[in-house]
Formats: sequence, structure tokens, C-alpha cells
Amino acid sequence: MTREPASPEAPEGAVRRVESPANPAVKAVRALHQKKHRSATGLFLAEGLRILTEAVALGHAPRTLVVLPAMRRDSMGAQLVAATLAAGGEVLEVSEAVLAKIARKENPQGAVGAFPQVWWDLDAIDAHRAFCWVVLEAPRDPGNVGTVLRTADAVGAQGVILLDNACDPYSLEGVRASMGSIFAQRLVRTTFDAFHAWRARQGGQLVGTALNATADYQAIAYGRPTFLFMGNEQSGLPPAYEGACDTLVRLPMRGRADSLNLAVASSVMLYEIYNQDRRA
Amino acid sequence: MTREPASPEAPEGAVRRVESPANPAVKAVRALHQKKHRSATGLFLAEGLRILTEAVALGHAPRTLVVLPAMRRDSMGAQLVAATLAAGGEVLEVSEAVLAKIARKENPQGAVGAFPQVWWDLDAIDAHRAFCWVVLEAPRDPGNVGTVLRTADAVGAQGVILLDNACDPYSLEGVRASMGSIFAQRLVRTTFDAFHAWRARQGGQLVGTALNATADYQAIAYGRPTFLFMGNEQSGLPPAYEGACDTLVRLPMRGRADSLNLAVASSVMLYEIYNQDRRA
Repeated sequence: MTREPASPEAPEGAVRRVESPANPAVKAVRALHQKKHRSATGLFLAEGLRILTEAVALGHAPRTLVVLPAMRRDSMGAQLVAATLAAGGEVLEVSEAVLAKIARKENPQGAVGAFPQVWWDLDAIDAHRAFCWVVLEAPRDPGNVGTVLRTADAVGAQGVILLDNACDPYSLEGVRASMGSIFAQRLVRTTFDAFHAWRARQGGQLVGTALNATADYQAIAYGRPTFLFMGNEQSGLPPAYEGACDTLVRLPMRGRADSLNLAVASSVMLYEIYNQDRRA
Repeated sequence: MTREPASPEAPEGAVRRVESPANPAVKAVRALHQKKHRSATGLFLAEGLRILTEAVALGHAPRTLVVLPAMRRDSMGAQLVAATLAAGGEVLEVSEAVLAKIARKENPQGAVGAFPQVWWDLDAIDAHRAFCWVVLEAPRDPGNVGTVLRTADAVGAQGVILLDNACDPYSLEGVRASMGSIFAQRLVRTTFDAFHAWRARQGGQLVGTALNATADYQAIAYGRPTFLFMGNEQSGLPPAYEGACDTLVRLPMRGRADSLNLAVASSVMLYEIYNQDRRA
């Protein structure tokens, strides 16, 4: 392991040039690809100028921004640097070789950011501020969670509540699939019991999907707010959770396949709930 | 590189025990993770007892089946071995260590198969045999194509037509995302011009989706068959292709996100077309 020579003192708020991939600041950013480091620091990575710029527009400045020199001459890049410094974050200027060590994307558009994860407490949420929430029971695939965030954002839902032993939506796969929506939607992680108690106080309609439900998903009138409750990729909703729902619906199928991808099923449901809401 | 010692002659139709990951038959199967080897051989890989069993049920026997010894004592495994041999395929019995070299999945359920790719000619297709087809312009992500195949299969569409410079749906990612539907749906690859000429002869309705279309996707009556035409992940449909459509529709959005995942958008459209068809 090589060590970076001590760099001359940089003035606070300045951009720091880092030459070595073994630099501790670079290594700390890179470590965020691993879940244990995301959990320990409460940070996560996002790659690409476009998503980073969207994040800033939504009020999320990077704690650490890693950029190529060329980025600072680009107007979007310069704004990103300024926003990071203004929020008290650090900016590391690196070579393409060092950026390639940090980024997973083949073309990270010259910029990677480490952001604080945001998790909402249920008690801070007024569920009635939106027509719809998505509740996912122990999803396994962060790509699915990211894709659900993207659709939820498109239809104007408020957020996604992750129950029990869920995967980490702040993995790079989840962040990427969300296409920036992870910065716009509210994320909650909690247990089924805590969710259930909160929901009893909030009201609204808890709608589960089940393969053996009798009600067609289009035959039900969805209330405000609707909590769309989806089981995980392998096993669907546990029976006790189905029992807690106000309504159980099924997505009809007539082909050979007897199930849909989780993000697809969630999205088809979200569009039905949204279609009813926009017609009302 | 080590070489496998010459194995004793196995009777035709027997299971061959292979000990080394350097065995040419094992290496040939493993090479199918690479597109160039899939293209050269016309074969592709599927992993997992369940999907392999579905493939056989749909009339697709593996050209080469790689199994753990334990699989042959399992009733589904034994049927898979019998079906492979009956169709003239070869069966390789390997150790867990060798299977782990071939499979990408952490738990390949003891079986991996190499299957012939099936590509349909447009001229062999009567489009009127189904209510719907999906046409994808140059999709980049095989996971998206696999997920579209899965939804198409669930609603009873006939297949997916890939235009122009499309990714390979027979990559492991595509096969996995299809959850077996790649064996059930028809796949075509062709150019836009060839598709367009064929479609003119077949009739039916070519429906494109576009962000700036004026017609809401639920305001249109879809004909039989409908060709659902989707642009790719980055750029949507090229203007000339939009111009060739009978109808252009948009998926409404009211949130911050201004686009959907390709497989999600395709699936929301497929469910609308299917819902109209099942109500008719």
C-alpha cells in the first residue's frame, strides 16, 4: 500500500487535487460500493453529471464530490463544484485513472458523488400528503427497488416503505435504476409491526397483491392514500400480511407466465391507482 | 492450461463424467457467457432446474446439460437428463467446483443447459394469431428485453421483434430476467425496413410511444393485432419511426421523473392493450 505524500494545506472550501488511488479520501469514497461501509458511514454513491446535478437541484449536495479537471471547466460541472463547497462538502480533483477506480459505470461522465442517505421516520410523515405510497416487503433486488422509485416518482407517489429484511436501495444498482428518483422520493425502513401500527393511526387503504386474490385490480376503487403492498420476488406476501390488508387484488394473466417482475407488477398497479386518481 | 486425460469411450446416449474445468466440453459451455461464442455457435445458457424443466416442457431440450451427481437422483433432474438424451443431447456430470466455474448464479440449482437459440423469420409468422406483439427499437439492456418477454408471456402476447442494433436477449441476464419466457415467446431480429414492409402486408395497428404525443394511452382503442413499438433506453423512437406509426400515445406522468424504465413502460402499455382485449 502506498501513501499519498502530505499535501500542502488547502484553504477551506478549495478543490483538492489527489493523485493516488491510495489516497485515504479516495479510498473512503470507493469503499461505499460495499454495504458495510454504506451502513457505517450513512453515505452512498451516485455516478454521472446528470444525476448529480438533479440531486443538487433537489437539495442534496454531495458530502464528497470527485471530478475530472475537465469537469470544472464545464458549466454544469462548475455549478456542481460550487454547490458542494457551499454546502461544506469536499471536492477531489482526480485523473481519469483514479476516477475509473472509483466508478463502476464505464462512462461516469466525469463525476462521482458521496451523499448522505436519507431515511424518513414514519412519525414524521403525514401519509395524506400524497395519493399513494408503495410498501415493499423484504425486496431482494435493489434494481427492482430503484425501478419502483422511478415509477413512483413519475406518477407522483410520495415514497417507498421498505419492510423487514430489505435489500439496500442505496447500492449503486438501486441508485442507478432510480435515475435520480432516489433523491426525490421518501424512503422509510421499518418493521411490518411498526408500519401496521402507524398505518392504523393514519388511515388510508392497504392494498395487497396476491396471485390467488379474487378481485381484479381494475375492479377496485382505490382510496386516498392507497398503500400499495407488494411481496418480495420469491414468495409474495406472507399470509399474515395478506390478512392485514383492507383489499387483496390480483393482476390478471392469461399467458404461460404466472408471475411478473416485482418492479413491473408494482408499476402496473401504480398506473391503475394513478389513472383512477387523475380521473377523479 | 491443463488437459483432460482421454476419457474411456462412453456409450452413445450415456452420461459422461467430467472431472476437470479444462475439459473441452466444459469450456465450450462456459464460453457461452460471451456474445461472440453465442453468435458463433447459435447456442445460449440457461441456469437452474426450474427454468430447464420449463424449457423441456415447452419443447426445448438442451444440446448440452451439465448436472451435479445429486441431480440425477432427483426426479426432476432425472427427467431432464432423460429428455436431453432422448433429443440427442449430451449430459455432463460434474463436481460442484466445476459447476461453479460454469454457472454465474450463486445457486444454479445443480443444473446448467446449453440450448439452441430460436429466431423466427418474419415470413413464417402470421401476426393475426395473437392480439399483440412488442417491437423494440435497438434495446441496450438484455435485462429489459427479458423482462418484456416475461410480461408479454403473462398477457398472452406472441413475441418480441428486435429491430436494428439490439442487444442479445440470449445473454444470461436476458434469459434470467425472462424467467423461462424466452422459451415460450417468439423472438425476431430484423431491420426497421424489413419489419415495416412485412407489417404493411400483415395489417394491424402500429402504436408507438412518445413523450410528446398528444393522445393519452388510455384514450386509444387498440386493434388486433397491435404492434407496440418502443424506442430504446436512451433516445426513444427516432422521428422517422414515429412517422411510420398509425398511432402515437404517451404515458401520462405528473411527478418529477420524466421517463420510465423501458420494461416498465412496455409493461404498462401491454396491460392497457390486454385490458381492452379482455373486456372486448
